[in-house]
Amino acid sequence: MVETPTSHVPTRYDRDEHPTEFGRVLALSDGVFAIALTLLVLDIALPAGTGDRLGAELVDRRAHFFAFAISLLLVGTAWWSHHHLFSMYRAVNSTIIGLNIVYLGLVVLVPFAQSVLAGYPTEPLAYALFGGLLTGIGLVDSGMFAYAQRSGLLYGRVTPRAARQEQLLGAAFTLTFAISIPFAFLLGPYTGLIWLTTPVSQTLILRLYPLRTT
Amino acid sequence: MVETPTSHVPTRYDRDEHPTEFGRVLALSDGVFAIALTLLVLDIALPAGTGDRLGAELVDRRAHFFAFAISLLLVGTAWWSHHHLFSMYRAVNSTIIGLNIVYLGLVVLVPFAQSVLAGYPTEPLAYALFGGLLTGIGLVDSGMFAYAQRSGLLYGRVTPRAARQEQLLGAAFTLTFAISIPFAFLLGPYTGLIWLTTPVSQTLILRLYPLRTT
Amino acid sequence: MVETPTSHVPTRYDRDEHPTEFGRVLALSDGVFAIALTLLVLDIALPAGTGDRLGAELVDRRAHFFAFAISLLLVGTAWWSHHHLFSMYRAVNSTIIGLNIVYLGLVVLVPFAQSVLAGYPTEPLAYALFGGLLTGIGLVDSGMFAYAQRSGLLYGRVTPRAARQEQLLGAAFTLTFAISIPFAFLLGPYTGLIWLTTPVSQTLILRLYPLRTT
Amino acid sequence: MVETPTSHVPTRYDRDEHPTEFGRVLALSDGVFAIALTLLVLDIALPAGTGDRLGAELVDRRAHFFAFAISLLLVGTAWWSHHHLFSMYRAVNSTIIGLNIVYLGLVVLVPFAQSVLAGYPTEPLAYALFGGLLTGIGLVDSGMFAYAQRSGLLYGRVTPRAARQEQLLGAAFTLTFAISIPFAFLLGPYTGLIWLTTPVSQTLILRLYPLRTT
Repeated sequence: MVETPTSHVPTRYDRDEHPTEFGRVLALSDGVFAIALTLLVLDIALPAGTGDRLGAELVDRRAHFFAFAISLLLVGTAWWSHHHLFSMYRAVNSTIIGLNIVYLGLVVLVPFAQSVLAGYPTEPLAYALFGGLLTGIGLVDSGMFAYAQRSGLLYGRVTPRAARQEQLLGAAFTLTFAISIPFAFLLGPYTGLIWLTTPVSQTLILRLYPLRTT
Repeated sequence: MVETPTSHVPTRYDRDEHPTEFGRVLALSDGVFAIALTLLVLDIALPAGTGDRLGAELVDRRAHFFAFAISLLLVGTAWWSHHHLFSMYRAVNSTIIGLNIVYLGLVVLVPFAQSVLAGYPTEPLAYALFGGLLTGIGLVDSGMFAYAQRSGLLYGRVTPRAARQEQLLGAAFTLTFAISIPFAFLLGPYTGLIWLTTPVSQTLILRLYPLRTT
Repeated sequence: MVETPTSHVPTRYDRDEHPTEFGRVLALSDGVFAIALTLLVLDIALPAGTGDRLGAELVDRRAHFFAFAISLLLVGTAWWSHHHLFSMYRAVNSTIIGLNIVYLGLVVLVPFAQSVLAGYPTEPLAYALFGGLLTGIGLVDSGMFAYAQRSGLLYGRVTPRAARQEQLLGAAFTLTFAISIPFAFLLGPYTGLIWLTTPVSQTLILRLYPLRTT
Repeated sequence: MVETPTSHVPTRYDRDEHPTEFGRVLALSDGVFAIALTLLVLDIALPAGTGDRLGAELVDRRAHFFAFAISLLLVGTAWWSHHHLFSMYRAVNSTIIGLNIVYLGLVVLVPFAQSVLAGYPTEPLAYALFGGLLTGIGLVDSGMFAYAQRSGLLYGRVTPRAARQEQLLGAAFTLTFAISIPFAFLLGPYTGLIWLTTPVSQTLILRLYPLRTT
């Protein structure tokens, strides 16, 4: 097997040399995130109206609104994290493209996990499933960073300190959801409270572990 | 807590220095708007056909067509407003990204609010809900402008007069829908007439409060 | 009312000066087209399986496959036409943005019209409805060109001959569908044959009315 | 019929001269792929919950999860292949745009074929249908390359060796699925094993047939 550092038709797409090819990876990702965000709402749909019962119907659907709000916050955080991750990439290659498709495959499962949550709001397994899915998203996200770091796909400006910050962000995300899986069987619906620490812990890490110039 | 004006891995994305990162915020937004626009139509779906009753079915669905047309106009106006808002941004940061995700979360609720409207066309609460949702969209829109202005994220070309115009546009949008909430309980289906003044008032403000060069 | 040729915050977005703002109009459009294309397929969905009846089910759904193929071809042609139209634009303004949203509102109705077609395959009204919708798309498309031409939004390279070609393309598209509306009540399912002349006539106009250099 | 090498309003869009027009073809494609990826998940939806039966429901849906995973992998591979193909294009023209819309029309059928697969997991015809659809995708993909090569739309850097590699990738993809059609009637659910060789064979071709510099 012959290793080729450069090839005429690249399988490594540099952001500056191949802006269109680099950009398509992000276009596909943003498209999937946009649709996942939008599908979250499909689950709330009310049954066809029967006169003046709308108020009662909306109250009945409170589990669906709650699940929608949590999913929105977490898919939003995942997008923010994906955006932050790819901002450090100088280039992508076939492996990153492959990992990213697996990542997107997990993201599109979130609306499904949300509808399970809203349909079975008292069932611990539903919370464990949701937690497990987000754990998977965190793992692939961290994996994409670790691989990119090892393969020289990151910008030179990603200093050891910046890399450490990103690893912390990924570890905090993944661990929070991994821990929530067993706790789901104890806490049931209150597992959501564990998840909701995620945007907070991400912001805290960015504040407590700032990147200084020079 | 150490404040860092510049960091190696930016959390502020300048339009010129980080076009890809700036652009992804808009790509996610345009994707969500495109899907929200498209989902609006899903609500009209007819029941499976039974011979020659199509004409009657279409007439029966008139509330759905009406709700579709109003939603289309209002989501269209919201997109136009988002487009106008971000055209003034020199840069975005984490706060804008977070606010924008909340904003998009409200936009994806519009197809839901529309289906409530079409399913309960005689129920005042449905109109109050729709009005409340659009009020929320207007508030976050205005908040994103106020924050960006205070944080130096706007272009220098956004003069005090231009800022004032944008604030007027935002206030008119938000107030119209806020006022429509109590009126919904009085006017019922006619609340839509209040909403329909929005594209008109936006255009009027742009005409009556023009931006002169020098 | 004071007319302002240039303003600090533009409501006219030039392709070169404001590439992001110009691009967002296309991004929204491409997003809506992509989703409309994809929604076309939702209508084919089979009922849940019961053993070995799949072959029969697929044959039963032939009207849905037929409606899908026609819609795909026509939405594809509309996208191609939109792509061609905007390739002549040097800039867009608020009016074009507004007309484009109306245009997209008609495009998202195509999956609805298709499902009516597939659900009522023997009902002339379904064919008239589909024809009417495409007539509307053609009219707004032609309107956007006429307005842009009058308002100096087109490139200088759009010679009188090129403009004439575009008008011919638009007129052929619109007329074909407009004529198909009354014919739908005569021809029923065979109305599709009139529609299918559209890609052919568009290609013919491009061939018979070529644009020569110099 | 007069052939015109260059025209004022181009029907050939060069990547460098007409970046917006070239980019829209990819934007439409990425949008369709993103939505197709996301629709794959709609098929898994559970029936509304009835207490503690969630575990059993999830096990009951295993055919749907399996079909989702296979479709995700294959749509992902198709996107990767489309990305690779268009990275070689210097320009697109009307024929490529037309072929690409046919290609996208096949991609949006994948979620349908997947739901047939999940709904009729023991029915050979479902596997033949899925195999046939992917054969079609492979054929159009190869056709777009062959046409582009003949029409001078490829970059000069696409050497005969690179072209040969692309042809091999296309042929391997198409043949695998074409062969799986008759085998579906023999193997039933095990036909998936044939399909799963595709990402492997694509990677192998890239490794065993590398592109050397100079």
